[in-house]
Amino acid sequence: MLYLDDIKPGDQYTTHTHQMTEDEITAFARSFDPQPFHTDKEAAKDSFFQGLAASGWHTAAITMRLLVESGLPLAGGIIGAGGELTWPRPTRPDDILHVESTVLEVTPSRSRPERGMITVENLTKTANGDVVQKFVVKLVVPRRT
Amino acid sequence: MLYLDDIKPGDQYTTHTHQMTEDEITAFARSFDPQPFHTDKEAAKDSFFQGLAASGWHTAAITMRLLVESGLPLAGGIIGAGGELTWPRPTRPDDILHVESTVLEVTPSRSRPERGMITVENLTKTANGDVVQKFVVKLVVPRRT
Repeated sequence: MLYLDDIKPGDQYTTHTHQMTEDEITAFARSFDPQPFHTDKEAAKDSFFQGLAASGWHTAAITMRLLVESGLPLAGGIIGAGGELTWPRPTRPDDILHVESTVLEVTPSRSRPERGMITVENLTKTANGDVVQKFVVKLVVPRRT
Repeated sequence: MLYLDDIKPGDQYTTHTHQMTEDEITAFARSFDPQPFHTDKEAAKDSFFQGLAASGWHTAAITMRLLVESGLPLAGGIIGAGGELTWPRPTRPDDILHVESTVLEVTPSRSRPERGMITVENLTKTANGDVVQKFVVKLVVPRRT
């Protein structure tokens, strides 16, 4: 497990993969983002997305699971304070997703010697390299002391 | 339903409410953010969060459902391109959440006369006014033409 002291800018990690299915996309959307372009393949054809698209929050949730299961192994877990989130294109049924993480900054806390923050760029990509989500996030990380 | 032409900076909307339960928090976390401080009340006591905390992505997903069901009634649906997301404090079991939205900017597209973008600040708040999520998002909105 990694502590703040073990991490430096430029470090990279890649998760394993997850294939999105139409059933997962529509089930998530019915629970959390019930709009026709996320819940109904036929209705989605005439929408802005021109076909069924996963909710961005579904892409975000799958990204998180991939990171927890096989991303940066942080000692304190993955605890995000927030960041800049974009969805350059929607996730589609059958897309096989993975996450590529790059550490951008490592900042020890001035007031709390037992922890610090790291800034990480997480790119969620399809098998052919399309970016479906970019999340540049600040994470709380404990120090080894 | 609202088109770009109907919206102006300063417009405000408030959704109805949703009460988070411990069962919902742990079920979401088991599916998408399986870390002990989100899945296990006892384990959470000794964690950074000092008690069970909802995944930030769960707060985001509930925020989205509140917006879809009772937020800005946009003609094309709520279609986000991305934005700045922060979680000032975690959502806890029994928190009663609602979302307060304020339109910050309205920008017609130069290249596409049929649509534009609006920037909206969405504050997800508890009943006593604590902000559990702030999301300043750019949304795609159709024009009335």
